[in-house]
Amino acid sequence: MTLKLYYAPGACSFVPHALLEAAGATFEPVLVKLHKGEQQSAQYLSLNPRGQVPVLVDDGEVITQILAIVTWLDHRFPQAGFLPREPLERVRVLETLAWMNNTAHPTFTHVFMPHKFAAGPEAQAEIKAQAASAFGAILGEIDAMASRAAESGRAFLGGASFGPLDAYALTLLRWGGFAGHDPQRFPALWAHVQRVAALPPVARAIERERLQLNVFGKL
Amino acid sequence: MTLKLYYAPGACSFVPHALLEAAGATFEPVLVKLHKGEQQSAQYLSLNPRGQVPVLVDDGEVITQILAIVTWLDHRFPQAGFLPREPLERVRVLETLAWMNNTAHPTFTHVFMPHKFAAGPEAQAEIKAQAASAFGAILGEIDAMASRAAESGRAFLGGASFGPLDAYALTLLRWGGFAGHDPQRFPALWAHVQRVAALPPVARAIERERLQLNVFGKL
Ligand SMILES: N[C@@H](CCC(=O)N[C@@H](CS)C(=O)NCC(=O)O)C(=O)O
Ligand SMILES: N[C@@H](CCC(=O)N[C@@H](CS)C(=O)NCC(=O)O)C(=O)O
Repeated sequence: MTLKLYYAPGACSFVPHALLEAAGATFEPVLVKLHKGEQQSAQYLSLNPRGQVPVLVDDGEVITQILAIVTWLDHRFPQAGFLPREPLERVRVLETLAWMNNTAHPTFTHVFMPHKFAAGPEAQAEIKAQAASAFGAILGEIDAMASRAAESGRAFLGGASFGPLDAYALTLLRWGGFAGHDPQRFPALWAHVQRVAALPPVARAIERERLQLNVFGKL
Repeated sequence: MTLKLYYAPGACSFVPHALLEAAGATFEPVLVKLHKGEQQSAQYLSLNPRGQVPVLVDDGEVITQILAIVTWLDHRFPQAGFLPREPLERVRVLETLAWMNNTAHPTFTHVFMPHKFAAGPEAQAEIKAQAASAFGAILGEIDAMASRAAESGRAFLGGASFGPLDAYALTLLRWGGFAGHDPQRFPALWAHVQRVAALPPVARAIERERLQLNVFGKL
């Protein structure tokens, strides 16, 4: 059994990266320099024709898509408790994970890569501004989730164990800084993210990616 | 046990709608008129604050997000085989389902509701044109999936049983018509969709939603 993770620093690949560390897995991290366009090289496209990270390779099986990778890691490392076993609780985590993946994440993509949606500079500026504002509301939703978790004594967003929602929340809050949102505006989320970032396995992933948690005003 | 599905004709809620029919479930379909803005009524927002269909209500439990609803229906109706049991096969279906949900589907949203991404009419026109073109490439990818399924003797995109990938593929191909893509340009997909649409449970969902499969040139 050999595990390889293709990742880019600060990208959404942080989610499986942190989970692999949390599982105590032995894996080979493979850095893909997105700013140099390495995801569009012939070699990378032969791995993932969609030219994106993350990609998990498990004994030759190439798995893309955060949702699929997370489900696979949950299957491979059941003791980590990444997803609840109880069916309704599990569906609740998948519901939030899907929303982070299909709504929160793409909203930031509009801020960061508006050229994916329109060619002209004016259209791009409009897209970016509207998405940056929508992203603030999204972080507000995640802040409310963090409040509810704290109030009900749950240590993590998905229940009793660190899991994909916590890693995604950290990533999204970091991205918020690039979108002009001060993390301090989301106190429950910011507290949660700082606590999660201090967990030794999460700290190892942060260290490998050389991430600063608060990038607000640092662009 | 009572099941309720909030749906809108031709929307992505067709996915759980067709699965409920395929499971032989007894459920109450509740029509939400998106073009009249009913998804923004106080009553609907108290059900789903994000103002979207589909919503599944199962004995009072409100479940949103296609991925979560599909996982729940697979759990509730195991005999329907909506998702494979074998872990790697299951992850493969989730991988494609996630991509349909986070990439294919939102690309069409840019064609259909460009105002969600920019306010100005020129920016909206640019967004729409770029997304319509990207949507053609996406349908090409799904066409290739349908070819591979046919070549390898699989009756459905996810394996031996009708499932979420087939229902989503049908929905996306229909949407393609609105985005200016003639379904005939995707022969394997078009053949697959027509065959799927003729299955009695799928035909019942189509009938309830009064859908035409080929809307190309009909707007
Ligand atoms: N739907 C994909 C999204 C992956 C994604 O958005 N990856 C981004 C980084 S956060 C990427 O690789 N972007 C490179 C590019 O678009 O060129 C998933 O869930 O894995
Ligand atoms: N991520 C959601 C997407 C749901 C969605 O996009 N619903 C659309 C119909 S296809 C909707 O309700 N739109 C109404 C609106 O945006 O006002 C899911 O997977 O369920």
